[in-house]
Amino acid sequence: MSSTVGQVIKCKAAVAWEAGKPLVMEEVEVAPPQKMEVRLKILFTSLCHTDLYFWEAKAQDSVFPRILGHEAAGIVESVGEGVTELAPGDHVLPVFTGECKECAHCKSEESNMCSLLRINTDRGVMINDGQTRFSINGKPIYHFVGTSTFSEYTVVHVGCVAKINPLAPLDKVCVLSCGISTGLGATLNVAKPKKGSSVAIFGLGAVGLGAAEGARLAGASRIIGVDLNSGRFEEAKKFGVTEFVNPKDHKKPVQEVIAEMTDGGVDRSVECTGNVNAMISAFECVHDGWGVAVLVGVPHKDAEFKTHPMNLLNERTLKGTFFGNYKPRSDLPSVVELYMNKELELEKFITHEVPFNEINKAFELMLKGEGLRYPAFKSCSGIIEKDGERLELEKKRMKFRAIAF
Amino acid sequence: MSSTVGQVIKCKAAVAWEAGKPLVMEEVEVAPPQKMEVRLKILFTSLCHTDLYFWEAKAQDSVFPRILGHEAAGIVESVGEGVTELAPGDHVLPVFTGECKECAHCKSEESNMCSLLRINTDRGVMINDGQTRFSINGKPIYHFVGTSTFSEYTVVHVGCVAKINPLAPLDKVCVLSCGISTGLGATLNVAKPKKGSSVAIFGLGAVGLGAAEGARLAGASRIIGVDLNSGRFEEAKKFGVTEFVNPKDHKKPVQEVIAEMTDGGVDRSVECTGNVNAMISAFECVHDGWGVAVLVGVPHKDAEFKTHPMNLLNERTLKGTFFGNYKPRSDLPSVVELYMNKELELEKFITHEVPFNEINKAFELMLKGEGLRYPAFKSCSGIIEKDGERLELEKKRMKFRAIAF
Ligand SMILES: NC(=O)c1ccc[n+]([C@@H]2O[C@H](COP(=O)([O-])OP(=O)(O)OC[C@H]3O[C@@H](n4cnc5c(N)ncnc54)[C@H](O)[C@@H]3O)[C@@H](O)[C@H]2O)c1
Ligand SMILES: NC(=O)c1ccc[n+]([C@@H]2O[C@H](COP(=O)([O-])OP(=O)(O)OC[C@H]3O[C@@H](n4cnc5c(N)ncnc54)[C@H](O)[C@@H]3O)[C@@H](O)[C@H]2O)c1
Ligand SMILES: [Zn+2]
Ligand SMILES: [Zn+2]
Ligand SMILES: [Zn+2]
Ligand SMILES: [Zn+2]
Repeated sequence: MSSTVGQVIKCKAAVAWEAGKPLVMEEVEVAPPQKMEVRLKILFTSLCHTDLYFWEAKAQDSVFPRILGHEAAGIVESVGEGVTELAPGDHVLPVFTGECKECAHCKSEESNMCSLLRINTDRGVMINDGQTRFSINGKPIYHFVGTSTFSEYTVVHVGCVAKINPLAPLDKVCVLSCGISTGLGATLNVAKPKKGSSVAIFGLGAVGLGAAEGARLAGASRIIGVDLNSGRFEEAKKFGVTEFVNPKDHKKPVQEVIAEMTDGGVDRSVECTGNVNAMISAFECVHDGWGVAVLVGVPHKDAEFKTHPMNLLNERTLKGTFFGNYKPRSDLPSVVELYMNKELELEKFITHEVPFNEINKAFELMLKGEGLRYPAFKSCSGIIEKDGERLELEKKRMKFRAIAF
Repeated sequence: MSSTVGQVIKCKAAVAWEAGKPLVMEEVEVAPPQKMEVRLKILFTSLCHTDLYFWEAKAQDSVFPRILGHEAAGIVESVGEGVTELAPGDHVLPVFTGECKECAHCKSEESNMCSLLRINTDRGVMINDGQTRFSINGKPIYHFVGTSTFSEYTVVHVGCVAKINPLAPLDKVCVLSCGISTGLGATLNVAKPKKGSSVAIFGLGAVGLGAAEGARLAGASRIIGVDLNSGRFEEAKKFGVTEFVNPKDHKKPVQEVIAEMTDGGVDRSVECTGNVNAMISAFECVHDGWGVAVLVGVPHKDAEFKTHPMNLLNERTLKGTFFGNYKPRSDLPSVVELYMNKELELEKFITHEVPFNEINKAFELMLKGEGLRYPAFKSCSGIIEKDGERLELEKKRMKFRAIAF
């Protein structure tokens, strides 16, 4: 058992003190896990757009000071009362949405929107006692979506932790805890294209390329990538995208362009932009009779989805999904196995590396939007005894990586 | 073989000469069926709202002079070149939407929107030669949705004819060729409620009550009927509806009222009103995570379906359907069997009878909207030899019936 069990751990964390201001590397105190909580040593983390939104806090309210971060991989350091499914040393992915296994959603085959642990971007505290586990000199530092992975140690509800194959390289599979799984699952679990079918992907960011990977795995014969930024097209070829449409190159609405390319519409579409016009186009470009459109992008709070009801009557289906409908604890381990079996390649999503100390660079890169996403870092202090050898190995690449394309 | 084969048949038909003007009983000439066509002797027909819309021709364009009618049952009199699946004497239901069995839609498991024979309300001619089969003194009288059942004889494309169990009483199963099957299939084939689930039905007309029957057959434990007309509620109890909501009785939007009644929303909803606000409410009242809403009502041409995309992201599904997703030739015979097996009761849909000569009374009743629907008539001339005995029986009730609740 680790000597830190039951103790407050002091470690490094990147704290967001104010909206839009550079994060500051601080020494924070991380309290031990309480009932149904686990304390994780975070080894790698990535930067996702959602972190950026709540750091900028332009369209959304946010809570400060806060420790952001939710796409990560780590190892259980200790567990709180009542935790039986996890033990120190387990390799895990923390996830922004949880699975209590008790509520109507968790019991439903169709939903992953756990009543207890579904994403909550407003809450900055743990649900057990309404308090934070992070502090600096006694001053509370707030949590973010229950994960706060921009810290060497974090405390997470057990329902938000997926235990994975200990042989999986954490520097790769960390990217599965948000964007890539979201896109992949949106296609595989929700759009469900049949072999040989056509799929349009709106938005070729990491989520959209995850969706394209899903289409490729499902055996789609045509994968049409749609993006306003043609700069995305070259890279997207690596992800199985076979054709490209930039709506700016056409006078007609893009849904009509796609309908012409596909004799009436694609079989499936997956929207990964967050732009409501793209959502409408993604819906209207699917074939009548059997077309299914899936919305993934998080819309602006004043957005309105509009369409003529005849587009629905003509037997199109419209759905939305969070986290690709994966239940984090039940399903994520099998997504990791897709990578282990070489069915899913994660390396191509990972294009940049940034040391943890320079995490603000990752924010800058993402703000520039030059195709850069998902910085990850290797935690650089502390040792998990059960896994000493592996950690030694990882220490050699002690740096913060921007993972993108 | 009938002596009329290959001959022009003179018979009675109710002709709509002008928009909104009473139909006129005329002697019309019905040409023999051409390639892939069949000529039917119509024994019973009902009046559906769609007939009324295209007779009024207020919101829609219509073609005149025209023979309306599309909810009916009859017997094959003769068949044209290339027809092998039907023979004189077969008992059939003509359907406004067809099934060619060759196109992508007919080959798809999901769609019933046949490319060749899907509903076309603008076309007043047969597709084989672009001509009508009806005339009066050489002047063409136009067809309606390929069926024109307000005539003792009509010519229909073979793809729009379902051959059914010859033991089925045609005066009952005639109502399955449009509204009731539409509602029933919307629930059973598209919404697919699980046993024990909750279902909201918007609009308690014949289509909505067909949908309620579907919910009852699927084993729903709560069937919530929503209508602006509380007069519908008493009758609807016969159709398994367990609770009623009149949106006018509440200050809150009806979707919120339903969410409160059901701890977050119903599992399924089926909209059968044609009103776009009801469509939006029907969508927004389903539970997040797993709720499915199905639109059936035919919307106004300027209608706009609007919702916040978050309602979709929260894992709700929105679909629409024509004719309850039944493929007319492949699936309708089994719906007739539901009636034959006493699983589906049609008698309760049939409340009024009107003689064919007084067909305008049926239009008046429906216009008043006092819960009256689906008039049907018994053809009163000609004999189908193969089925002489049965016809003798039916002749005894030679009258036009309004079928409703
Ligand atoms: N539902 C979920 O569970 C979930 C999880 C993670 C991310 N998301 C959302 O998914 C979306 C995509 O995330 P990402 O990290 O890949 O973002 P990203 O910014 O890397 O990629 C978005 C892409 O969409 C393109 N785009 C924007 N507007 C467009 C339009 N109108 N038409 C075509 N292309 C357009 C952009 O050029 C960009 O390439 C975001 O809205 C994010 O918030 C949702
Ligand atoms: N999709 C298809 O294949 C198909 C086939 C047949 C009929 N339809 C359509 O189905 C709809 C219903 O047909 P019907 O014959 O049962 O009609 P109907 O007029 O008998 O019944 C409609 C009911 O809806 C109620 N209603 C109207 N607006 C409402 C609102 N905002 N909220 C709640 N209730 C409301 C009315 O009071 C009425 O009781 C029509 O729009 C019709 O055109 C569609
Ligand atoms: Zn994310
Ligand atoms: Zn739960
Ligand atoms: Zn067809
Ligand atoms: Zn009808």
